[in-house]
Amino acid sequence: MFRIGNGIDYHKLAEGRDLILGGVKIPHTKGCLGHSDADVLLHAICDALLGALSLGDIGKHFPDTSSEFKDIDSKILLKRSIELVWERGYEVVNVDANLVLEKPKIKPYVEAMQTTIAAIIGVNKEDVSLKATTAEQLGFIGREEGVMANAVALLKKK
Amino acid sequence: MFRIGNGIDYHKLAEGRDLILGGVKIPHTKGCLGHSDADVLLHAICDALLGALSLGDIGKHFPDTSSEFKDIDSKILLKRSIELVWERGYEVVNVDANLVLEKPKIKPYVEAMQTTIAAIIGVNKEDVSLKATTAEQLGFIGREEGVMANAVALLKKK
Amino acid sequence: MFRIGNGIDYHKLAEGRDLILGGVKIPHTKGCLGHSDADVLLHAICDALLGALSLGDIGKHFPDTSSEFKDIDSKILLKRSIELVWERGYEVVNVDANLVLEKPKIKPYVEAMQTTIAAIIGVNKEDVSLKATTAEQLGFIGREEGVMANAVALLKKK
Repeated sequence: MFRIGNGIDYHKLAEGRDLILGGVKIPHTKGCLGHSDADVLLHAICDALLGALSLGDIGKHFPDTSSEFKDIDSKILLKRSIELVWERGYEVVNVDANLVLEKPKIKPYVEAMQTTIAAIIGVNKEDVSLKATTAEQLGFIGREEGVMANAVALLKKK
Repeated sequence: MFRIGNGIDYHKLAEGRDLILGGVKIPHTKGCLGHSDADVLLHAICDALLGALSLGDIGKHFPDTSSEFKDIDSKILLKRSIELVWERGYEVVNVDANLVLEKPKIKPYVEAMQTTIAAIIGVNKEDVSLKATTAEQLGFIGREEGVMANAVALLKKK
Repeated sequence: MFRIGNGIDYHKLAEGRDLILGGVKIPHTKGCLGHSDADVLLHAICDALLGALSLGDIGKHFPDTSSEFKDIDSKILLKRSIELVWERGYEVVNVDANLVLEKPKIKPYVEAMQTTIAAIIGVNKEDVSLKATTAEQLGFIGREEGVMANAVALLKKK
């Protein structure tokens, strides 16, 4: 009656874009580039939820070739993902996610992200964990060219 | 009575090699380089299964210095890995895997991969989730020099 | 009554540093650079334990701006992390971790790492799985500029 999921996502950083992480707008000189609002953290969580029930990936449900999803708020994608989970009779036990980015410090925004995500996926704030680390100046994350997020989710049959 | 596992694998892409992912041959200009057929996705799943029961890693069971495993079909490695799991009295609840590669699109092959893997590890197709994402042209995956796969597995005591 | 966690960590490699992985000193020409002893594997495990219960990340509990943690043995950080888990009434079912590094071979040290970690987090050696893979000479890991570790943890309410 338990299932686990595992999501990962990457986005380029570019000037002139808002940085939206975990549904929260974060002041920074760069933002993630993408067809939607490019919220790399919500995308990884969507994929963990969908993956746990083998429902396909975010690219299948929300194709970046569709004008419907152009610049879309990824909170809407998360909402649709959790609805698919609920339709199958499952609920979230907990989610644990990592953001790997060189800058900025996201600690001041973590609680707002948790609250935002928890409200959408129907759990308590304490059931959504968000952690952050740098890549220690290594590789494309270290050079601030891009960011990565991964997430695991534990689901339970209702 | 539950256990979780977590596998990750990387392979270089090279011209003149077949691209085998999830046990399925995919038409492409490059394939993964390796001692075996270099099926990065099956290797990550093998490691998730072995890791859940602390049985060592794929390099321990199938060393790339052994001629026995030269060019071997990784479906055989997956079969041997799941047999070790069954011998310990466990079975798979579900597997959720991610392929990170720039090209080609793997969506047309996902169902064949799921069917192939599910038959080997003794679950329904719906218990094997395969997702794919690009690295958004970033790093060695973005430059099409290599690919990465990761997988989580939930096991249950029979 | 189950929870899952997911940690990831990166460190630069530099000459003139000891290489400490999983609490074990490994003879090598380089070691991980960091504020603490830079044990990338223990850090990933700490984050998986903390993340499963949404207790924040290692950077929150053990800030690299604090002199208290300068050159600290990461086994102490793991001990403090598991104590936070126990205080919440949870215990570890199993941990499965991956080290991604180009060199050296860590197989001779895996059993010592397992024994060390298991003793700290209060499980049997068989409940701590450590696997290793190279990045196949790709990227910053392939160039031996850095290493990565990730870990998942399954916790259970006592």
